Amino acid sequence: MTASPELGAQRPAPDLLRSVFRRHAAGVAVITAHGPRPAGFTATSLTSVAAEPPLVSFGVGTGSSSWPVIADAEHVGVHILGEHQSELAATFARSGADRFAPPTRWRSGPHGVPLLEGVLAWMVCRVVARVPAGDHRVVLAEAVAGDPTGDGRPLLYHQGRFNGLRD
Amino acid sequence: MTASPELGAQRPAPDLLRSVFRRHAAGVAVITAHGPRPAGFTATSLTSVAAEPPLVSFGVGTGSSSWPVIADAEHVGVHILGEHQSELAATFARSGADRFAPPTRWRSGPHGVPLLEGVLAWMVCRVVARVPAGDHRVVLAEAVAGDPTGDGRPLLYHQGRFNGLRD
Repeated sequence: MTASPELGAQRPAPDLLRSVFRRHAAGVAVITAHGPRPAGFTATSLTSVAAEPPLVSFGVGTGSSSWPVIADAEHVGVHILGEHQSELAATFARSGADRFAPPTRWRSGPHGVPLLEGVLAWMVCRVVARVPAGDHRVVLAEAVAGDPTGDGRPLLYHQGRFNGLRD
Repeated sequence: MTASPELGAQRPAPDLLRSVFRRHAAGVAVITAHGPRPAGFTATSLTSVAAEPPLVSFGVGTGSSSWPVIADAEHVGVHILGEHQSELAATFARSGADRFAPPTRWRSGPHGVPLLEGVLAWMVCRVVARVPAGDHRVVLAEAVAGDPTGDGRPLLYHQGRFNGLRD
């Protein structure tokens, strides 16, 4: 067969998506929530959605270890990581790790949300929707408190590794 | 009053959101669609949402010039811009510009979707949901075709300007 590769005919779509997003770069965030235990995970899907009301979104897999806590949480913590925090990002992406054990530094913030120390910026957001999207949920949440004044420049993720801005 | 600034008590929430996302960095995409005219806009909200089915999401303001076309589109074009394409990103963010006039290079792709030339990667995606989120919509779309093999490294947006990866 002579189907054009550009039409994706010879490339299963999940593989196409993965290949395309390997070309994309993203800022790195950690999402936390308080349940029977503190939970949290590294996310490269955080975006600002609307200014009025002030909404963010992020994705979470329904098979992830954090999902049971995120599924029930009224509030979540949203943290923008700095380029000095690639170890923290790796910890919150690692299966089986106790992500809140030392050297992770955190405290309990507004509404009991676990807040990570040393980040560029954090918000506590009230969850307003969990939109089904295949094996994931897109969580929409409204900013209710926060601090954008941490030190440093943003951590980035590209082609399977952490990086920083050029200048 | 002595409210803690970290609780956001002295900072209106839309302003907090803006301040926090100034600390965030994002990859740059252009979303296109075909309607009575070709339409498109620069987005820093593109993310991969799920692998099965292969879903992406992006945000669009209902007051934006592209919204009437995006609102009716069955398919959209999703383009990952390279660091050599900051001019293209600026064009697709500029009010009143004819974004598809030269020097913009484009062609009509699968399902009539306008495809920009010279990008790192593109996909044609079928719109599956437009989720209301304040004055914006979160569009969920499933990848149906694409090419991830363009040359270059990703364009980034941070603190109001375009940038690249460090190395």
